[in-house]
Amino acid sequence: MNLNDMIKETGAWLRGTGANADIVVSSRVRLARNLSEFPFPHRASSEHREKIAAAVLRAVTGCPAFANSLVLGIEEITPLDKQLLAEKHIISLEFLECGENAKVIIGEKETISLMVNEEDHLRLQAMQPGLQLMDAWKLVDEVDTQLSRRIRFAYSQDWGYLTACPTNTGTGMRASLMLHLPCLVISKQINKILHVITKFGLVARGLYGEGTEPSGNFFQISNQITLGRSEEDLIDNIERIGKQVVGHEQKARKVLVTKSRTELEDRVFRAYGILRNARTVSSAETLELLSDLRLGTELGMIQEVDRELLNELLMLVQPAHLQKTEGSELSPAERDIKRANLIRRKLE
Amino acid sequence: MNLNDMIKETGAWLRGTGANADIVVSSRVRLARNLSEFPFPHRASSEHREKIAAAVLRAVTGCPAFANSLVLGIEEITPLDKQLLAEKHIISLEFLECGENAKVIIGEKETISLMVNEEDHLRLQAMQPGLQLMDAWKLVDEVDTQLSRRIRFAYSQDWGYLTACPTNTGTGMRASLMLHLPCLVISKQINKILHVITKFGLVARGLYGEGTEPSGNFFQISNQITLGRSEEDLIDNIERIGKQVVGHEQKARKVLVTKSRTELEDRVFRAYGILRNARTVSSAETLELLSDLRLGTELGMIQEVDRELLNELLMLVQPAHLQKTEGSELSPAERDIKRANLIRRKLE
Repeated sequence: MNLNDMIKETGAWLRGTGANADIVVSSRVRLARNLSEFPFPHRASSEHREKIAAAVLRAVTGCPAFANSLVLGIEEITPLDKQLLAEKHIISLEFLECGENAKVIIGEKETISLMVNEEDHLRLQAMQPGLQLMDAWKLVDEVDTQLSRRIRFAYSQDWGYLTACPTNTGTGMRASLMLHLPCLVISKQINKILHVITKFGLVARGLYGEGTEPSGNFFQISNQITLGRSEEDLIDNIERIGKQVVGHEQKARKVLVTKSRTELEDRVFRAYGILRNARTVSSAETLELLSDLRLGTELGMIQEVDRELLNELLMLVQPAHLQKTEGSELSPAERDIKRANLIRRKLE
Repeated sequence: MNLNDMIKETGAWLRGTGANADIVVSSRVRLARNLSEFPFPHRASSEHREKIAAAVLRAVTGCPAFANSLVLGIEEITPLDKQLLAEKHIISLEFLECGENAKVIIGEKETISLMVNEEDHLRLQAMQPGLQLMDAWKLVDEVDTQLSRRIRFAYSQDWGYLTACPTNTGTGMRASLMLHLPCLVISKQINKILHVITKFGLVARGLYGEGTEPSGNFFQISNQITLGRSEEDLIDNIERIGKQVVGHEQKARKVLVTKSRTELEDRVFRAYGILRNARTVSSAETLELLSDLRLGTELGMIQEVDRELLNELLMLVQPAHLQKTEGSELSPAERDIKRANLIRRKLE
């Protein structure tokens, strides 16, 4: 596996399967871990960071989940490839700014991955399609157990796992669901619902997590609290609240289909028509149009397009994916044209 | 011929032929005439109006141009049919408000028509596709000559033909071209050009002439002056100025195709995509979209659609046409849905 192969296939977590896949795009769990004998990355010396990376790589070698994985040092990743990995949700936007000896290890089909020397020594994540948070948790938990046999993690009896930022201390876990909530947006219920979930210790963000605004009616909801409750409890809470949000979206869809079928069909088919005809289209507009098309597909209004194709498009229309597909760097205006071409080709 | 047949076929003047038909939709000449022995319609008694109508109908009977024509009294035309005739540019918006003994006589293929007891006793018009103002003039001139053998028109040696409104006195002639000028609009030259033509005694109006705003990038230009110059002179002037405007539009099209081909294609194909997919669409949006599609067709970007189909659509999407096609009265919201359905069917 190499990075160039990775634009040809989207991760297994974008297969469009799993529970409630009509609304829940994916489930993700990540763990923050640090080696007990070294300072946190932003305080670690170059030498320390090198030793951390070496220790993690050694430990990972024995993990079945990382068999046939791709190991990349930040120095050997081009800026475009970094952006590609961020678009694939494999590395964080923060990782882009990391110094030497930052590494990323990508398991087969992108289900599991690990950043080394990002904000913490280790950031391990698992992704699954649909509402499968518990499965994602089991995956990272297993790898975490395996790694902990080979590395001593910084851990306090009182506080749990210690992390560079106190907001991660305890379980070191952040679990999230990516939800597609177009009808809660159309029916203007979304703000109320996003406000209510904060009362249950959850927070809503955009497509790329912290620091990003929601777009294309995609909302990532995740736990705010990492401390004082078990991982299973936290995950159970997100799944439970997540299912309630799913229920509200399902209800909103039913109401709109019943009361405003024509307007909804109009919206969906116009989006489909524009996507199959536009000659230039921005990222932002594409997300909105793909959201409408996704809704139409889920409601059975459009038969020719399936969820997996829509997920693939969601990935491929991004700037780095477009440039990797084209094999050359492109200006924003050129990207808008290539994006429109790619969408037309895929929806033909 | 009856009114119900008239929605199945558009007038011959919408055939999309004639000189400069890529820009000039149609040419129209109308003459205002009054019978010398009666007061103008708004001053005429009911009895007078009846006598005027009878005299005109007798005179028309001998005109070859009006062989097989349809004669309708305003009392026998339903409100919906009145609207239909206005949409077809056969009757004026003013005619809708006319009292008893107002009549309309429609020649075969709608090339020639005559309103009786509108603002003047007679309003005779001829329409031709493309830039064929002189042909349209010859048609009305011939009928005018034939009629003048049977009716004595109000005529002054000093002023020429006398009309109810002094702005028509003299020739009684209004000649106009319907121009499609999308690229002068896109390139923001249109206002300057419409200002310049006023210096040559011309005025620009919307799709339905006086009192209507331009929409869908269609502009009707006509003579402001009816007095002091011969009909041929006036027509020659409009044709000459019209050709200059056509030249400017052609140049603007070339510039845009050269400098902004992608943006132009994008605009055209998006319109095509929306028209083939929308489930509900307003009159105003339809005009804008059909304008873009027309431009794309004229520029050879879209092959599947021709000018005649576009002209047909321009007619059929109008409120009365839609309701006549459906055979029932429709609310505005219902019309928007039927309009979208009709367009999809026609563009399939």
